[in-house]
Amino acid sequence: MSKASGTDSTLQAAPDPLAPAVILVSPQLAMNIGTTARAMANCGLHDLRIVNPKPKWPNELSRRASSGADEILAAARICASTSEAIADLNRVYATTGRTRRMTKRIVTPRAAALEAREAHGKGERVGFLFGPERTGLENDDLALADALTSVPLNPAFASLNLAQSVLLIGYEWFQAGDETPSSRLASGDAKPASKQELENFFLHLERELDHCGFLRVADKRPTMVRNIRNIFQRAAMTEQEVRTLHGVVAELVRGPRDGVRS
Amino acid sequence: MSKASGTDSTLQAAPDPLAPAVILVSPQLAMNIGTTARAMANCGLHDLRIVNPKPKWPNELSRRASSGADEILAAARICASTSEAIADLNRVYATTGRTRRMTKRIVTPRAAALEAREAHGKGERVGFLFGPERTGLENDDLALADALTSVPLNPAFASLNLAQSVLLIGYEWFQAGDETPSSRLASGDAKPASKQELENFFLHLERELDHCGFLRVADKRPTMVRNIRNIFQRAAMTEQEVRTLHGVVAELVRGPRDGVRS
Repeated sequence: MSKASGTDSTLQAAPDPLAPAVILVSPQLAMNIGTTARAMANCGLHDLRIVNPKPKWPNELSRRASSGADEILAAARICASTSEAIADLNRVYATTGRTRRMTKRIVTPRAAALEAREAHGKGERVGFLFGPERTGLENDDLALADALTSVPLNPAFASLNLAQSVLLIGYEWFQAGDETPSSRLASGDAKPASKQELENFFLHLERELDHCGFLRVADKRPTMVRNIRNIFQRAAMTEQEVRTLHGVVAELVRGPRDGVRS
Repeated sequence: MSKASGTDSTLQAAPDPLAPAVILVSPQLAMNIGTTARAMANCGLHDLRIVNPKPKWPNELSRRASSGADEILAAARICASTSEAIADLNRVYATTGRTRRMTKRIVTPRAAALEAREAHGKGERVGFLFGPERTGLENDDLALADALTSVPLNPAFASLNLAQSVLLIGYEWFQAGDETPSSRLASGDAKPASKQELENFFLHLERELDHCGFLRVADKRPTMVRNIRNIFQRAAMTEQEVRTLHGVVAELVRGPRDGVRS
């Protein structure tokens, strides 16, 4: 999550030439153009178009703020109008934080991302429009879009900065095409323990617990054994972890070694 | 999506006292504490805990960067250790960008958010741990967590800043409890047209098209009529829009008024 961690620059994801375009309409801060480029790179997007920027934007401030996403800035297309910027696209979503007096389909970023993936699968080009920081998109720009998209957030504090809006849209685009399992056991090279290995450990532990008297009440023994087995069962251990626990039990039984204070 | 748009400060969402805590471990930049508070406010989170910050942090720079989320900073708890910061929580997720040599369940932010909502529903307190900007969390901190969570992003450019990581986790938390329909027609007070109103328009249009000769080839007429009806059917019009189109057709038929050049 930190600046450097997680990035593996040897993993050159081949840029998808049909990935959605990000269109910034009249951005007001050079830095936000850079942080937008960074957010795009995070999400596998690269096609940046800027409508009506100030002269010589993106500039050095944009570049520094991009944290290495320079290529996106260098390739950014400068356009005189929104119409020009979207001319080659097949489907356009306009991001907006406000309810507008306009009859238009409005979708969540998640739904927009799924639709965009579907269109992408048919070879269509998709774009997302983002308005100026202070005012958002104007109604004439919204009218050019197929649908509006608005991020559901705390209505009492919905203020997102431009790059954060781009990040959330790009994040949903990336998730919609990502196959990371929602839950898995990260264990490096470690192999999960077999049921036999687990059973051997349970027998070892219970033998020692019988021996020290912990399971001495015959009535309660079956329940206690089940409860203890359940604890370790839930831990979903690796082979190595089961070996470690065998050692833990053996050493506890042995008691202090010479030179180790109890 | 812009700074101001979308925020309605009259909508005082009652802060949920059991909402997940955000724990920043040894943050390195005062500004990031502020932008984290802003991201938290966006997502309805308010319980910020900071482990081992520099003296007098959060400071004025943090406050300015929070864009109004001052209350979160003012209420932030400063803790000497991660253990202290999580002592009252029932379930902790550690965010990490790197694959670690550790046997631990790793979940996507989306799955973590669903689990957190479920725990929250049972009255449990959940927390999310975030590490220092440059290095991420250390293994001793990861070992305190129930599971790891990592944001699936472009592996060749996974560098997220701290507040962006918090935003993505908080965003998923918010979405997991949000009931915004994934797609709807935003139409203000406008009522959708009834099928009868649509049919009346179709008949009006087709009458005029017959009249002007557009539908003169009898063989092709049924297909052309169907195609034209489909176009307007897909547009999911309001009553007002249908009235507008009646006017459009009538005026096209009438031709130029006096004083209007063709």
